[in-house]
Amino acid sequence: MEWINFDKLESIKKLEGLAKVDVKEVMAGENGARRVEAYKVPMSNGLVYDFAAKQVDDAILAGLQELADEQQLTQKYAALYNGEIINTGEKRRVLHQLCRGQLGDDVIIDGENKREFYVGQQKRAGEFAKKIHAGEIVNEKGETYTTAVQIGIGGSDLGPRALYLALENWAKVNGTLKMEARFISNVDPDDASGVLATIDPARTIFVLVSKSGTTLETLTNESFVKDALAKAGLETSKHMVAVTSATSPLAGNPEYMDSFYMDDFIGGRYSSSSAVGGVILSLAFGPEIFDRIMAGAAAEDALAKNTDIMKNPAMLDALIGVYERNILGYNITAVLPYSQALIRFPAHLQQLDMESNGKSVNRFGEFISYKTGPIIFGEPGTNGQHSFYQLLHQGTDIVPIQFLGFKNNQMENDVVIEGSTSQQKLSANVAAQIMAFACGKDDENLNKYFAGGRPSSIIVGEKLIPESLGAILAHFENKVMFQGFIWNINSFDQEGVQLGKLLAKKVLAKNTDGALTAYSELLGIF
Amino acid sequence: MEWINFDKLESIKKLEGLAKVDVKEVMAGENGARRVEAYKVPMSNGLVYDFAAKQVDDAILAGLQELADEQQLTQKYAALYNGEIINTGEKRRVLHQLCRGQLGDDVIIDGENKREFYVGQQKRAGEFAKKIHAGEIVNEKGETYTTAVQIGIGGSDLGPRALYLALENWAKVNGTLKMEARFISNVDPDDASGVLATIDPARTIFVLVSKSGTTLETLTNESFVKDALAKAGLETSKHMVAVTSATSPLAGNPEYMDSFYMDDFIGGRYSSSSAVGGVILSLAFGPEIFDRIMAGAAAEDALAKNTDIMKNPAMLDALIGVYERNILGYNITAVLPYSQALIRFPAHLQQLDMESNGKSVNRFGEFISYKTGPIIFGEPGTNGQHSFYQLLHQGTDIVPIQFLGFKNNQMENDVVIEGSTSQQKLSANVAAQIMAFACGKDDENLNKYFAGGRPSSIIVGEKLIPESLGAILAHFENKVMFQGFIWNINSFDQEGVQLGKLLAKKVLAKNTDGALTAYSELLGIF
Repeated sequence: MEWINFDKLESIKKLEGLAKVDVKEVMAGENGARRVEAYKVPMSNGLVYDFAAKQVDDAILAGLQELADEQQLTQKYAALYNGEIINTGEKRRVLHQLCRGQLGDDVIIDGENKREFYVGQQKRAGEFAKKIHAGEIVNEKGETYTTAVQIGIGGSDLGPRALYLALENWAKVNGTLKMEARFISNVDPDDASGVLATIDPARTIFVLVSKSGTTLETLTNESFVKDALAKAGLETSKHMVAVTSATSPLAGNPEYMDSFYMDDFIGGRYSSSSAVGGVILSLAFGPEIFDRIMAGAAAEDALAKNTDIMKNPAMLDALIGVYERNILGYNITAVLPYSQALIRFPAHLQQLDMESNGKSVNRFGEFISYKTGPIIFGEPGTNGQHSFYQLLHQGTDIVPIQFLGFKNNQMENDVVIEGSTSQQKLSANVAAQIMAFACGKDDENLNKYFAGGRPSSIIVGEKLIPESLGAILAHFENKVMFQGFIWNINSFDQEGVQLGKLLAKKVLAKNTDGALTAYSELLGIF
Repeated sequence: MEWINFDKLESIKKLEGLAKVDVKEVMAGENGARRVEAYKVPMSNGLVYDFAAKQVDDAILAGLQELADEQQLTQKYAALYNGEIINTGEKRRVLHQLCRGQLGDDVIIDGENKREFYVGQQKRAGEFAKKIHAGEIVNEKGETYTTAVQIGIGGSDLGPRALYLALENWAKVNGTLKMEARFISNVDPDDASGVLATIDPARTIFVLVSKSGTTLETLTNESFVKDALAKAGLETSKHMVAVTSATSPLAGNPEYMDSFYMDDFIGGRYSSSSAVGGVILSLAFGPEIFDRIMAGAAAEDALAKNTDIMKNPAMLDALIGVYERNILGYNITAVLPYSQALIRFPAHLQQLDMESNGKSVNRFGEFISYKTGPIIFGEPGTNGQHSFYQLLHQGTDIVPIQFLGFKNNQMENDVVIEGSTSQQKLSANVAAQIMAFACGKDDENLNKYFAGGRPSSIIVGEKLIPESLGAILAHFENKVMFQGFIWNINSFDQEGVQLGKLLAKKVLAKNTDGALTAYSELLGIF
């Protein structure tokens, strides 16, 4: 297997030479309709990835297939899930897929089968949740628990929070919401205070999540919560569980109700499938629902093994993204889910993508001279339509778009107004937006003129349920992984977050000089 | 007064010729500390705008002053607040500042003094809220109301929601939270269902907000809520008020409890200061708190009259942003508030900025050939540090940053851990991040190398309270306005949102062909 810098690839030179596609032209008329049919790849769990409105044609797709082959994308994926050390910076394996399926070889480390370890931890988390739900574990007064609060930040927060919000209302109408979940992340004391003001600590389990066991924000918020518990006359041992690695300072502390483990091979932003997501989501929805999310993700992982880009939606999505970034020169991607339940999914993707691929060195630690990961942002439609879409339609930069849409809503409550349901209106809007971005509109009044030529793709599902949610989660994880392979970077470390931590410690120790002192004074710290 | 295209300005040519500033170099050592002191402009209400870590020096600042003078920025601002027709596209005045202060001449239209109109509407809203709080207006059973739900989208949602969330916890600890507020915006039926599942409609006032009275999402959600009221045996006349323009189809409908008015001179994204924000925020916090927000904004509006850029923080911020956008070539700005309470403020700014200045024609409707508004995104720190900051530090694009920080938290509850409070840790992190972005860090291991040279500014306040919140709101409104003047565009219309609406109507009427039909089928609408 060869690890080649992006700018040394033969297929890139060829791709650069191919004629560019004018989306406005190709999406017009019946040819546009043919593209919607032809440029469509099935995903798992009834989802479909449609890229008709992207700036590609058959020649470019053939070039992208050559790129996938030359950069050996599926071989590298296989190396990853079979346990090779893909995270070269930290010299670690990358095993988040192993948490959720049967993919790959057994990975045995120090005599421990990692598959069994991850599955075993999830089983323990599920059993714990069931005992809580059944009232077999109760609080000091013999009462059941009603609320679960995750204390974590970054990957220990954004992914699990996005997944919880994605299914909260669905679970309510299906009667599977076992406990309400809340999240404390920010070191801003008002975050913890705000959450504590809306719950009853006596009926709450706090899930303390830090892989290293040393995350400043999380340990601070742990103390904050313990203070509140103590003031209410409550015991940590009745109200807090830990999710951490077996080697962390938090591990095996008898002060907690229980502890659940992941390890160094689960990166924070990929950790929703491990105990980091498993404990809180099993408490909220029951372990069966979490298993269904994992099954959805595993099915998508399996698709990602296909060498044919037309059978591998994550790889194709990755390749088109790289084509947009490096050949068309777009440096932003908007993620626009037409589903209110996915309100925090763009924030999760923002971390997933930008923390994984916002790098300027290759996997061997050498400078590279080509662009890597784009900026990711987004809000749910139709909200965004009444906000920043103005710039997307008529601004001076082109922003490629990733839409998501569903045929059915989650809560099975809708009204017919002027002959259509709200769900139909929602879906009509996403269809309309794709075409408005692609084809624009001529107008003699240039203020009302739309240039078009703005590319987008869409993932369409039947309904946002645990399986399709898991599939979408895995799709984007695998897309980001493939893009990292294409750019020959390490998508699994995050050294860029260290310097700020280091300098913050200096400020708190009053060990500063120059402008750092001046800013500390400006902010009233000194 | 002359309206000149940006690329015709003499001052731009001069600015382009000036030597660029290397932030890494100038922010090092004692020179950095001197810059933090010198490159600081007082705002109102105890706030300060510090731009030491921006790529400017005295020569560039002099050039920016020339640009401000040549483009007559403060004269144009005066023309705006004195009632000239600044919104050239829709041939409307722009009067949102008039809602909140004593700025400018009286504007009399059709015999009506607009200042008196806006102030009068706010007075009515305040009296209504007081009657609700005092139990003088009660529900069918004689019970008081506990919850207010705003039904609106875009500017009728994002600004009021961001302001509510910014003060919700502060009001709780100060005993001034009169009613909880919730928000329904998306046409996704799960949005309304989700909110309705968490409130008691019998104790709720719904605030229906649509300036035109024709917004698809809002009217749909109105029907959705009326359905729910009817099913619960409740009367619209006891549970819904309207906020609209006097000429809209919603105006003066006796079906509502009451109606409050704004007019065409208040743009949606600028409407928080009108009845659009005034009704819901007066219900939530009481009219006194809303008046304090307005007083804070008015003080900032007054500062924006200064022709000297070192006394006009909004204008200076605008000029530096334009310098970054058009001369340094950066096309994104990250807004990073170190305050959990400002969690949705970036979403408001995203609309404010991108909808105002995401334009490709000048104010006369002629094509322009220079870049206008950037993409805006952001999340609160320290959360973002554990997410997308990796790319901001080590990615291949430079993203200018707008930090916000406060010396004190809102909820007056904090813990000391390892010698510092959470608030100190929060502030230490923002100081550290500014310097990490500016100066970077050398390392032989290139994976741990930080190039630095990444510019940022910060707004620092004592505490996030109504006055400082209002000042921050106005600062950004005025920044965006000044940038629109600099680019010679109309920041007050939004024709780019129309085409999508038009095509969505076609889909719902099944009046489609080509790819629009194909997408409608893919999404299960047909």
